[in-house]
Amino acid sequence: MRVVVSIGGSVLAPDLDAERVEGHAAVVETLADEGCEIGAVVGGGGVARDYIETARDLGANEVQLDQIGIDVTRINARLLIAALGPRVDPKVAHDYEDAGDAIRRGDVSVMGGVMPGQTTDAVAAALAEYVGADLLVYATSVDGVYSADPGTDADAEKYDRLTGSELVDVIAPMSRDAGASAPVDLLAAKLIERAGMRTIVLDGTDPQRIEDAVLRGEHDGTDVVP
Amino acid sequence: MRVVVSIGGSVLAPDLDAERVEGHAAVVETLADEGCEIGAVVGGGGVARDYIETARDLGANEVQLDQIGIDVTRINARLLIAALGPRVDPKVAHDYEDAGDAIRRGDVSVMGGVMPGQTTDAVAAALAEYVGADLLVYATSVDGVYSADPGTDADAEKYDRLTGSELVDVIAPMSRDAGASAPVDLLAAKLIERAGMRTIVLDGTDPQRIEDAVLRGEHDGTDVVP
Amino acid sequence: MRVVVSIGGSVLAPDLDAERVEGHAAVVETLADEGCEIGAVVGGGGVARDYIETARDLGANEVQLDQIGIDVTRINARLLIAALGPRVDPKVAHDYEDAGDAIRRGDVSVMGGVMPGQTTDAVAAALAEYVGADLLVYATSVDGVYSADPGTDADAEKYDRLTGSELVDVIAPMSRDAGASAPVDLLAAKLIERAGMRTIVLDGTDPQRIEDAVLRGEHDGTDVVP
Amino acid sequence: MRVVVSIGGSVLAPDLDAERVEGHAAVVETLADEGCEIGAVVGGGGVARDYIETARDLGANEVQLDQIGIDVTRINARLLIAALGPRVDPKVAHDYEDAGDAIRRGDVSVMGGVMPGQTTDAVAAALAEYVGADLLVYATSVDGVYSADPGTDADAEKYDRLTGSELVDVIAPMSRDAGASAPVDLLAAKLIERAGMRTIVLDGTDPQRIEDAVLRGEHDGTDVVP
Amino acid sequence: MRVVVSIGGSVLAPDLDAERVEGHAAVVETLADEGCEIGAVVGGGGVARDYIETARDLGANEVQLDQIGIDVTRINARLLIAALGPRVDPKVAHDYEDAGDAIRRGDVSVMGGVMPGQTTDAVAAALAEYVGADLLVYATSVDGVYSADPGTDADAEKYDRLTGSELVDVIAPMSRDAGASAPVDLLAAKLIERAGMRTIVLDGTDPQRIEDAVLRGEHDGTDVVP
Amino acid sequence: MRVVVSIGGSVLAPDLDAERVEGHAAVVETLADEGCEIGAVVGGGGVARDYIETARDLGANEVQLDQIGIDVTRINARLLIAALGPRVDPKVAHDYEDAGDAIRRGDVSVMGGVMPGQTTDAVAAALAEYVGADLLVYATSVDGVYSADPGTDADAEKYDRLTGSELVDVIAPMSRDAGASAPVDLLAAKLIERAGMRTIVLDGTDPQRIEDAVLRGEHDGTDVVP
Repeated sequence: MRVVVSIGGSVLAPDLDAERVEGHAAVVETLADEGCEIGAVVGGGGVARDYIETARDLGANEVQLDQIGIDVTRINARLLIAALGPRVDPKVAHDYEDAGDAIRRGDVSVMGGVMPGQTTDAVAAALAEYVGADLLVYATSVDGVYSADPGTDADAEKYDRLTGSELVDVIAPMSRDAGASAPVDLLAAKLIERAGMRTIVLDGTDPQRIEDAVLRGEHDGTDVVP
Repeated sequence: MRVVVSIGGSVLAPDLDAERVEGHAAVVETLADEGCEIGAVVGGGGVARDYIETARDLGANEVQLDQIGIDVTRINARLLIAALGPRVDPKVAHDYEDAGDAIRRGDVSVMGGVMPGQTTDAVAAALAEYVGADLLVYATSVDGVYSADPGTDADAEKYDRLTGSELVDVIAPMSRDAGASAPVDLLAAKLIERAGMRTIVLDGTDPQRIEDAVLRGEHDGTDVVP
Repeated sequence: MRVVVSIGGSVLAPDLDAERVEGHAAVVETLADEGCEIGAVVGGGGVARDYIETARDLGANEVQLDQIGIDVTRINARLLIAALGPRVDPKVAHDYEDAGDAIRRGDVSVMGGVMPGQTTDAVAAALAEYVGADLLVYATSVDGVYSADPGTDADAEKYDRLTGSELVDVIAPMSRDAGASAPVDLLAAKLIERAGMRTIVLDGTDPQRIEDAVLRGEHDGTDVVP
Repeated sequence: MRVVVSIGGSVLAPDLDAERVEGHAAVVETLADEGCEIGAVVGGGGVARDYIETARDLGANEVQLDQIGIDVTRINARLLIAALGPRVDPKVAHDYEDAGDAIRRGDVSVMGGVMPGQTTDAVAAALAEYVGADLLVYATSVDGVYSADPGTDADAEKYDRLTGSELVDVIAPMSRDAGASAPVDLLAAKLIERAGMRTIVLDGTDPQRIEDAVLRGEHDGTDVVP
Repeated sequence: MRVVVSIGGSVLAPDLDAERVEGHAAVVETLADEGCEIGAVVGGGGVARDYIETARDLGANEVQLDQIGIDVTRINARLLIAALGPRVDPKVAHDYEDAGDAIRRGDVSVMGGVMPGQTTDAVAAALAEYVGADLLVYATSVDGVYSADPGTDADAEKYDRLTGSELVDVIAPMSRDAGASAPVDLLAAKLIERAGMRTIVLDGTDPQRIEDAVLRGEHDGTDVVP
Repeated sequence: MRVVVSIGGSVLAPDLDAERVEGHAAVVETLADEGCEIGAVVGGGGVARDYIETARDLGANEVQLDQIGIDVTRINARLLIAALGPRVDPKVAHDYEDAGDAIRRGDVSVMGGVMPGQTTDAVAAALAEYVGADLLVYATSVDGVYSADPGTDADAEKYDRLTGSELVDVIAPMSRDAGASAPVDLLAAKLIERAGMRTIVLDGTDPQRIEDAVLRGEHDGTDVVP
């Protein structure tokens, strides 16, 4: 089974904590032990947010901010690589071909961001499509896809199951408003829809939930089905 | 005045025709002679479409298709470079920093696509933002932004003027449907909105219209204003 | 058995046709199934010719024309890669070391052109030499090496068998005249002579002939023997 | 006058603060306005320390830790670049040739770390040597070179003036003990000695002191003279 | 006037001698002072020959031997760069675009070899074509183009003047025999013919002769005229 | 057993001699046959010394000299690669990640120098640390670590056994004096100390001694123990 796991920055590195990274590495290793081929895409987290805020105050434009964010995601990728054993490709993959080649050879591949204008959500979806993943998991700080922002709307309802097309319909209006935080961004949603990719969005703060979802299909998040 | 011109593939290279490329090069040179600093981003056109169709028949995934499309845009960029005089950077820029550095040094810089998942529309918007362009021009095969696809909907109305936010509102539902062809894609529209970038969408099949729009502010397309 | 197959542009992509590419991919896969280690070098074909003609009209110099031709060969290489299964290196090799390394690891490696001033004929010969190939096959649009251009000279006779040194003697005067089209170019012929490389030049429009030549030694082309 | 300024991480980014970076950028701009050619080398600071600590807990080896530290210095370099005006090379230089080339063309060049095993202290000394700098300034968190660690040894005396050779003699025993923090590291000191480079070590927490030292030769730090 | 000077390895570095390199650098500087735009391409010389011989004894294939030769030419290029003042591009150019870009910006650009299968003779001709040079000078260890090898054939006659086409006719049979050493190789001759490039082949052991030929048109070598 | 072997330039290539390189390659192959995972780091030798001397006469700065030295070490690495069989990574590794990745995949990896300011001694120590080597062997032209330079000081005594910390104490004063030649440089010694790396310094002029030391623990050099 080929799996791409997107570990959001707010999940892997809200602040820097070796134990948290270790927990995610342990799950990746378990999945690999169980025979999964794995690509992991990690986000930026608190350090990215701090750097971007500082750079914005300094007059950086959005492309420069994105580049700083990407740099931080790649350092976070180095942390995950350090925590993984010898079966991980020791280089942070900078494009889909390198990641795909590593996975094809049996290594775990770890990516961060790729280019300004794309979130790591979209990178994960593109990688999943490129390697023909059987499953794409978004480990985020919310526990699924909601009809509205559950943090601000008491009537927000979680979806247990959506088609890719429904996912785009739900995400599109959320992503219209800069303040709102959809669990995956619109470009990612569209890639998922286009590829008909089986996807799970779940709360990844406890990495064990990723393992349960991948190996046993058990999770409390949202299933996106073709 | 700093200008980024996006020359769509359907405008620059619906088929391969030296005269058409020469016409666009002549306009870029005129703009440069008039003191403009210029970044040009070119699309893929007919060759890209043919290659992508062939590759899809061969089972290529979407990332592979995007990469092929990017390769073609870069060959088209070589054509434009060949047609431009010594003031163009002879290398096709592959990222915003290289393009921005060339423009900063007084060269015209030509880009094609950059990474899978982004159209050259979005590349042009990101480049415009990165270099702090005063104006972004989309030379497309339609003559502005319409309320609907003018090719299929007789009631489609062209907008003379939109805010960036209105542009996104118009583009978003169009981009929902894979068949529809918005004049600029949603990611580009969002970048324009975010940066408050002055933008013109016009029919670029006659390159003279680009010159009129940039140098004299005259055009029949759509003005997007901050 | 280690084999380098040069698939000329006029054979792989006179125009873009998925079936034709698929046919060549199928032969490469059969060869690999039969235990061959394979490097494939593909040419430019009709798209390259169109682009080069257009660029020449735009005033491009010969180095720029070569670069455009190389870019097209690399897109053609992407087509072949898309058509091949998981055993192909997903990256188009840009130098002999990368190609050789992929072959050494058991992958099929696909190259296009490498640098201005060298045809893909010469690239194939250099790759064959670099990897110590047992056999080099040129799949061209003519069915062997002739004493003169069979298209214009009714007395042209096909050679069944030549030494490398004889091959150079035959090719040298042909390559003198820009209009003539030798089945392999002079630099390639010299590399073949220098390396004492067993080589077959055959009509590759039907890819089956490549398979017959490699696996069973049966072909109607020209054998070049050390 | 050609100047290389090493801005230590503890000076530029003990924590992330736009104002502090802005202050250093302002000084660099003033120096450039006054006709200086400038290379700036920035350190890692608090974020680097946090990341390295986390990675060490995860079992990263020293080379991996160095690489993470280098990545952070390069993000800090992006901050300084964002704060500087159009006269800065927008790319973080990754080697001496790129930095030297930018300086030669009249740009300010900003570097971070280069390779595992070298501090940014040593990078600054090597860059100064490479570009033939007239002056090398270390803006550190201590106000000069002391006979011992002033933080732990009450008898530590600050040197007003040292030769390069004396500098090495002072630094060598300090650098022996991993705990001690020499104001510049031993490799840097040796490069300074070897090149006979005029160097100033000063407290750079107030960036104005760098300006005073470079433009007016006034400072309370340590002068290293050939 | 735009000039490309090919300084053969046997001329620049038969053995390593700073004075000889200095002499060539002085001529390049004089030419630049007189307003020439200059690209220099340097050969391998004695060190290349020694390395290649050693590598051949170790079983290296021809591509590997070429790569070693290219590496040595690039070190020789570093020597020439070190001897030139600040107007030289400090990076050894590895492709024609980089060299051309440096020349376009007013720098002297220095190249060595580029890719296996091409001599620096051919690189110089390709560079000259790429930058549209007014003159290409081959500074070799013989004093022109002869009808036969003057070292072995007492009847060999030097040509004062040849067309590009005649040059190819003279060189072709010489290059047939591996032992013979044509003053420029066949690929270079063909590029000269194709581009109609004005070319001088002269004895460059005394670099003054290059200066005389370029600035005053005086030389005892062979003129190749369109 | 994972081993990094540093083969000094004075050992591998005091002058160019295929037999000497072959001897070292044979030992590397024997070690690999016996199950060792091997990284080899080679020095510059006589050619490097000649080039550096010439470049110094031409006014090259120290960074330029280092770069020339690095280039020569990489050519020497190509020699060793040519002499090794198919199990060597055919690319000279330019950073620790590439070398480590090759070793992890079961290839022998060969490096030369990496960056100005670091000797190949230090590269070998960093590589050993990066790959978690069980043993680091310095094959030098002296037969161990002495209390003083045995060439100039009759009282110099060879150490049979040192801790890493003692090694640094011995090397530090030697490296102070530019003329002295410590068997390994100070940066390397510090890396050895820091990593607690088991290290042997021995006379490698007869490569058999490397084999004896690695496979049988027998040698007349100096053991550095954690």
